[in-house]
Amino acid sequence: MNFSFEVLKADSGGARRGRLTTPHGAIETPVFMPVGTQAAVKSLRNEALEELGARIILGNTYHLYLRPGHELIRKLGGLHKFMSWDRAILTDSGGYQVFSLSELRKITDEGVRFRSHLDGSEHLLTPEKASEIQLALGSDIAMVLDECIETPAPREIAESAVKRTTAWAKRARDFFLKCGSRNGDLNQWQFGIVQGATFADLRRESAQQLLAIDFPGYAVGGLAVGEPHDVTCEMTAVTTELLPKNKPRYLMGVGRPEQLADYVALGVDMMDCVLPTRAARHACIYTCEGKVLIKNARYAQDQRPLDPECSCSVCKRYTRAYLRHLFAAGELTAAILATHHNIHFYLDFIRQIREAIEFGNLAKFSSEVQARYAAGPA
Amino acid sequence: MNFSFEVLKADSGGARRGRLTTPHGAIETPVFMPVGTQAAVKSLRNEALEELGARIILGNTYHLYLRPGHELIRKLGGLHKFMSWDRAILTDSGGYQVFSLSELRKITDEGVRFRSHLDGSEHLLTPEKASEIQLALGSDIAMVLDECIETPAPREIAESAVKRTTAWAKRARDFFLKCGSRNGDLNQWQFGIVQGATFADLRRESAQQLLAIDFPGYAVGGLAVGEPHDVTCEMTAVTTELLPKNKPRYLMGVGRPEQLADYVALGVDMMDCVLPTRAARHACIYTCEGKVLIKNARYAQDQRPLDPECSCSVCKRYTRAYLRHLFAAGELTAAILATHHNIHFYLDFIRQIREAIEFGNLAKFSSEVQARYAAGPA
Repeated sequence: MNFSFEVLKADSGGARRGRLTTPHGAIETPVFMPVGTQAAVKSLRNEALEELGARIILGNTYHLYLRPGHELIRKLGGLHKFMSWDRAILTDSGGYQVFSLSELRKITDEGVRFRSHLDGSEHLLTPEKASEIQLALGSDIAMVLDECIETPAPREIAESAVKRTTAWAKRARDFFLKCGSRNGDLNQWQFGIVQGATFADLRRESAQQLLAIDFPGYAVGGLAVGEPHDVTCEMTAVTTELLPKNKPRYLMGVGRPEQLADYVALGVDMMDCVLPTRAARHACIYTCEGKVLIKNARYAQDQRPLDPECSCSVCKRYTRAYLRHLFAAGELTAAILATHHNIHFYLDFIRQIREAIEFGNLAKFSSEVQARYAAGPA
Repeated sequence: MNFSFEVLKADSGGARRGRLTTPHGAIETPVFMPVGTQAAVKSLRNEALEELGARIILGNTYHLYLRPGHELIRKLGGLHKFMSWDRAILTDSGGYQVFSLSELRKITDEGVRFRSHLDGSEHLLTPEKASEIQLALGSDIAMVLDECIETPAPREIAESAVKRTTAWAKRARDFFLKCGSRNGDLNQWQFGIVQGATFADLRRESAQQLLAIDFPGYAVGGLAVGEPHDVTCEMTAVTTELLPKNKPRYLMGVGRPEQLADYVALGVDMMDCVLPTRAARHACIYTCEGKVLIKNARYAQDQRPLDPECSCSVCKRYTRAYLRHLFAAGELTAAILATHHNIHFYLDFIRQIREAIEFGNLAKFSSEVQARYAAGPA
């Protein structure tokens, strides 16, 4: 196996500075993974992602399974080759999208039956199928199928989801290992996902059950779906304190820039979120002083860069006035420039977090960021 | 004046290999100018245009006047600075867009009264105003306001448009020169536009009247608006044979790749067209074998580059199968990649035309291109 994870330094509070090695390169952690849902990070060429220093991106199993289809991608040499990206890729299990995007979701112990949001065709996603699809995609890190529920959830719903998530995780692991023993070493790591909604004891129960299955890495799922930030942190904390120190921890679907350091402080190594790309397309620019809503008339003659402290190629060359004009005029170039900057902002921010851990001053860094955000943009 | 034009070589048929020098760099001619209507070539960053070797782009006066407004652009240092593009820019007069895009066009000898397609506000575009706007934009080459008519046109309509176009050209030239004597040398060249619809004698009359005004360059307008290709060529020929050999000639709004060499053979030095960018956004890819409609199912597993003979950064890295998927999935990255390639195709094609003139074999080059296009893509 060409995989490894090592913690290079841990601070007294629990934050970790590590390195995740994959067949497609090493990744310094904590890491933020830009989302490339349909085999592309929206509005960017791979060349831009490379320039920005992205070492791992996320692909969505649900979308790629429906279109262009995992068998086609397998036939064309796997997702890396298909999209011409030779750095690391993590794929989700498809579960979250099935629950949030598709129609007619019917969950049984077998799996989830659903209709495609594209053409209404009926599909069955089982733990085995989710693993099979991700093996066909050939991602470096694959996630097991879990049962995602809405929060706040009644306790009995959350209990039942934990139970099913564990049962599915066992089946996914068995399927994955069987494929491995049949095909030789698989070039993939499979991660388990802890559920339990906002119940600390259920989170612990879920974590312990998944630990017994023994995955090379663990994710915390079902959070940042509308609950208050302190609840997200509390649930993350009760989970990470149970997870093994020598394995990577992935908090799924987070988060806002000013929250990232909080999660890292709780021992999270990996994060992903559509926020930088989606916000960019809606003219929301992340800066060291907080969000700049660039369509605002106050920026019409503003000849400053998007972020006065940014070193990205967009901030070096273009002004707020120009970007505002491009958004007002509906030019595609607006999304390209805004996305490039926002991804730079996130990746640079997480670089600063890594550096703060190395210097042992993450808490100080975090409180300075909070204060600056609270003051707002100039 | 930092402007000059020299013909470096002319072939026996009339094609010219030249160099147009502007305050924003020298441009090898014949040249194809990508269209950047609203201060951006759609789907591309300026960095991409530079990589592609674009030395001059076109901006649209009508659009920039309405949004963000020429006074704002003047205040921010002119169009070059506003959009951060330090190579040459040509702006049209706004006339064509007023006639084709706006509502309630009312033409009088004074100018054109129209309503904005954006907000319905009423405006008056006069020859003086069109010049004033372009001086505010600070483009390297500005066009005079002309009267654009639909073709086929009755002779009396065409006659009247020629008359008005000449009268407007005089006023535009007077206004421009007056600004020059007031403000010192203007860093702009102003071109006249020959009209006359599809009547050879009216084209000649229009050309002769504009020659008397004495512009540093001349455009052929009102063509490629639906008439057959041989009519476009005939009207271009009767015009270019009257135009001075030592001044640049610009055929406005053309054309399809397989037609470019025909125009060059008639002595055209400059061309512009939205085709490569617009077609790209509609999944139409230009290749050395003709158009590839990349959404077609036949390309779903095609691992060849878009164009087997292309050296652009898109063709070096991405496959037809991938681009087809991006278009099918509605990803913005599809437009970015397709536009990049199509602009490369046009600029490379015109480079080949320049080379063919130098080697004295434009006719041979042209017939080979035609034959290849007729055979269609593999």
